[in-house]
Amino acid sequence: MKKFVNVAVVGLGGRGTFYACEILTQFNPSEVKIAAVCDLYPDRVERAANAIEQKLGYRPFETVNYRDILKMDEVNAVVVTSSWESHVEICLASMKAGKACAIEVGGAYSVDDCYELVKVYEETGVPVTMLENCCYDRKELMLLNMVRKGLFGDIIHCRGGYCHDLRSEISFGRENRHYRLNNYLYRNCENYPTHEIGPIASILDINRGNRFTSLVSVSSKSLGLHRFLEKEKGEKYDLTSKEFMQGDVVDTIIKCANGQTVSLTLETTLPRAYSRQFEVHGTKGIYMEDNNSIFLDTEEFRSKDFSWRGEWNNFEKFREEYEHPIWKQYLKEGVKAGHGGMDWLVMSNFIKCVANDLPIQTDVYDMATWMAITPLSEISIKESRFVDFPDFTHGRWKDRKNDLFE
Amino acid sequence: MKKFVNVAVVGLGGRGTFYACEILTQFNPSEVKIAAVCDLYPDRVERAANAIEQKLGYRPFETVNYRDILKMDEVNAVVVTSSWESHVEICLASMKAGKACAIEVGGAYSVDDCYELVKVYEETGVPVTMLENCCYDRKELMLLNMVRKGLFGDIIHCRGGYCHDLRSEISFGRENRHYRLNNYLYRNCENYPTHEIGPIASILDINRGNRFTSLVSVSSKSLGLHRFLEKEKGEKYDLTSKEFMQGDVVDTIIKCANGQTVSLTLETTLPRAYSRQFEVHGTKGIYMEDNNSIFLDTEEFRSKDFSWRGEWNNFEKFREEYEHPIWKQYLKEGVKAGHGGMDWLVMSNFIKCVANDLPIQTDVYDMATWMAITPLSEISIKESRFVDFPDFTHGRWKDRKNDLFE
Repeated sequence: MKKFVNVAVVGLGGRGTFYACEILTQFNPSEVKIAAVCDLYPDRVERAANAIEQKLGYRPFETVNYRDILKMDEVNAVVVTSSWESHVEICLASMKAGKACAIEVGGAYSVDDCYELVKVYEETGVPVTMLENCCYDRKELMLLNMVRKGLFGDIIHCRGGYCHDLRSEISFGRENRHYRLNNYLYRNCENYPTHEIGPIASILDINRGNRFTSLVSVSSKSLGLHRFLEKEKGEKYDLTSKEFMQGDVVDTIIKCANGQTVSLTLETTLPRAYSRQFEVHGTKGIYMEDNNSIFLDTEEFRSKDFSWRGEWNNFEKFREEYEHPIWKQYLKEGVKAGHGGMDWLVMSNFIKCVANDLPIQTDVYDMATWMAITPLSEISIKESRFVDFPDFTHGRWKDRKNDLFE
Repeated sequence: MKKFVNVAVVGLGGRGTFYACEILTQFNPSEVKIAAVCDLYPDRVERAANAIEQKLGYRPFETVNYRDILKMDEVNAVVVTSSWESHVEICLASMKAGKACAIEVGGAYSVDDCYELVKVYEETGVPVTMLENCCYDRKELMLLNMVRKGLFGDIIHCRGGYCHDLRSEISFGRENRHYRLNNYLYRNCENYPTHEIGPIASILDINRGNRFTSLVSVSSKSLGLHRFLEKEKGEKYDLTSKEFMQGDVVDTIIKCANGQTVSLTLETTLPRAYSRQFEVHGTKGIYMEDNNSIFLDTEEFRSKDFSWRGEWNNFEKFREEYEHPIWKQYLKEGVKAGHGGMDWLVMSNFIKCVANDLPIQTDVYDMATWMAITPLSEISIKESRFVDFPDFTHGRWKDRKNDLFE
């Protein structure tokens, strides 16, 4: 480590509290200090500071105003785990204050905000990234490894989704001061694209030899939350009679400069099992997450009169040969908590890069691209039209090399 | 049976030969006669006539020109199993000749053709239908039954696909006089939507209380056939260097008047297992074909920390309660050959309706609607825009009752 990392955590809901108290407390105290914690609600700040003090023996600076943190000379890394709508503002302020910044996942509220992230990054040179943990998931990295080794041939199509029954989390939002509720009341868009698009972007060399060129989104009606509230809270509960703008199923299709397509599904207000619906379709084979299986264009597969049903779970057979090197190493060292281990990996990459002045894996161009899906989908749904995808790299995507996660 | 059915079969490739020689030969000879067989290739006509003579003891009229058949007074039912591009022409001619007509599945080549089918039907009153066998599949009918019994609550979204590795069938087309090759060389569209959209249309009350209002399609590049031919035939084979227009993956999203959405995938030129990707998403539950499983919004499901993986194949648990009455009866009587039994059901419905002057289950409005997806998707892909979906019922969809398959 070249530099000591003094990290501040802004936003102490469930996610921020977990990063502050469970992940960042595990770094070597001679290399990393949790210098400050911040949230709009003082009780959250106190709770986090208590937990950190108990674990590490020192108490971080406590504040309800993130600007106080940006004034602290010693802070050189900011982790933003606040509500979605504050990510861009805090990230911009952090860059302007010269502090490396990692924001939690979430879409943008306007394409202009994405441009602004790029502009301020290019003016300041301060590294920023998105803590897209799914890029580090064991399964997604193994797929990336398989793609790079040519197992699937030329990649033609990828699919992803954020399919997660969040009805109680969203509609009881006020009670637990959750940030999602207003988004579902007043917006209709692909509001959570990054878990899927992060890993897919690595596979498709997005901003690194390829780019997204246009997008189209279509939304179903919104009825899931209403029916849920009728049942759980009854007619008299005020939200039951409110109209939610967010459609229950939003399908998005994105075209790429190199001819591939990507389809995304957001489905968070209907009852269902969790899935990121990850799929990779190539000229030599296909992977489907929901079946946990792979079909390859080989005699062996064809001779079996292959059906998904007969081969559910065959993905495990590929494990030994294709486990990603990052995970081989991680398994040896011992996997840490947090969504199956990926939370530690994404945070430790950020900390390591800040400490050593290294480029962070996914950069401002990736972040802007992924986040732009949200406002672009909002326009597409509202106006029933395709929207052009901005090139945040100013044409440099053609020459940038894809060495992500190598 | 009120009337004796004299049926002619036009088009004797694989599908027509199967219907003529394996399905129609099983009807009671005192009720149904195979009066004529027709194909552009005389060897196919002779082969079919021979088979029928061997089985039934009489030889049908043989011709290479379907117009000869339409002149036969005794023929009162025509089955069209010719190439996709001849379906509409023969169907129109058949109606004009006063002969009930059932066409094999396939998309249209223009929206005008779909309008023409409706117009000539309304002028002549001669019943026509599409032999959409998947409407009669055991699984699809069971799902329809579950939807009608309210198991899934309000339906929000349906998904379907025609995912079938047809690379050898398409690209060796010339050798076996197959109709697909030119479609893949010169068109780019959702060319085979009816297997999915037929069952989905029943579930969503399309043309019967609901209708499709707009459509958008996006195509990936075309590389699957090229890579396949490189490997199977080498560089010197003339098709290897040809450019196929048809994209490997075509995603289509359709909006409905009642707020639901439908997503369709065509994937026929990449290696993969067969799937129609049938999915039903409602406010009380979801079904997914590829997992053969159902998730319901009940304590039982939630308490299991349900994941698809743990519940693969649970669909069978619902069998006893929700088997469709058509299939309960069919299982008692003995299921006949043809795609798991559905071929017999769709053909016998056509024959029964002709014999008894009954309305055929799915009518000209359904047929026009399903077939229109192909030319509409072609426009959408070419022009990167949403296209309005025609209302072939002239507004009558609002009052038509959905009693399909009851």
